[in-house]
Amino acid sequence: MRKIEHIGIAVKDLETSNQLFEKLLGTPAYKMEEVASEGVKTSFFMNGPNKIELLEATNPDSPIAKFLEKKGEGIHHIAFDVEDIVSEIARLKEEGFTVLNETPKKGADNKLVAFLHPKGTNGVLVELCQEIRE
Amino acid sequence: MRKIEHIGIAVKDLETSNQLFEKLLGTPAYKMEEVASEGVKTSFFMNGPNKIELLEATNPDSPIAKFLEKKGEGIHHIAFDVEDIVSEIARLKEEGFTVLNETPKKGADNKLVAFLHPKGTNGVLVELCQEIRE
Repeated sequence: MRKIEHIGIAVKDLETSNQLFEKLLGTPAYKMEEVASEGVKTSFFMNGPNKIELLEATNPDSPIAKFLEKKGEGIHHIAFDVEDIVSEIARLKEEGFTVLNETPKKGADNKLVAFLHPKGTNGVLVELCQEIRE
Repeated sequence: MRKIEHIGIAVKDLETSNQLFEKLLGTPAYKMEEVASEGVKTSFFMNGPNKIELLEATNPDSPIAKFLEKKGEGIHHIAFDVEDIVSEIARLKEEGFTVLNETPKKGADNKLVAFLHPKGTNGVLVELCQEIRE
């Protein structure tokens, strides 16, 4: 848990929200990327040492579609940068957290990711992410 | 908007959640502080260049009490560090955002703060915060 890698925000329309967050943050999105396995289109903004990720659903079964239906637009998850995701998963399991992906999976932005169940973290969906090293 | 200063998380019981976040982040809270004007008790955790703030309501009229009633525990706001809050408020108003505090107010952790209305930011409650310089 070295820093907040990014905050993920669920939005209905990525194009509109890209314009909004460009005004808010004073910088345009540096990347747009579709993650078909998750049913999302994403955009990323740099903010000093952190990033903001916007997520739009690409199909009705996407976790983002379900989130929007239930809660509306807003903050979806908080992602922490970790040095070694495998050892961090082991540490958090040992501490009693429920890890939803015991084997990390490929996420957006060249990352290995794993999520913790929000029931064990005060309702916060926590993502661990580790840069994929070649 | 130089970085994510902190993420604010609404919790029901600060003591219990302090223990949980100490395990999650691998570090104890470095500060606990009551902000009577906001009806909250807070704790702060360092996470590299960022912080996590936990917020418990101290009375039923607290914004945090209302948030918990409506949405349950979870991420309440995202705070961005700004160099000059007065000029940032002016810039964001010019860009069309609704600033809830045209004059910044004293927040927790030695900060001047102002909030943007979440209706104009995809449902995200955005806080601007500037360190108070002596």
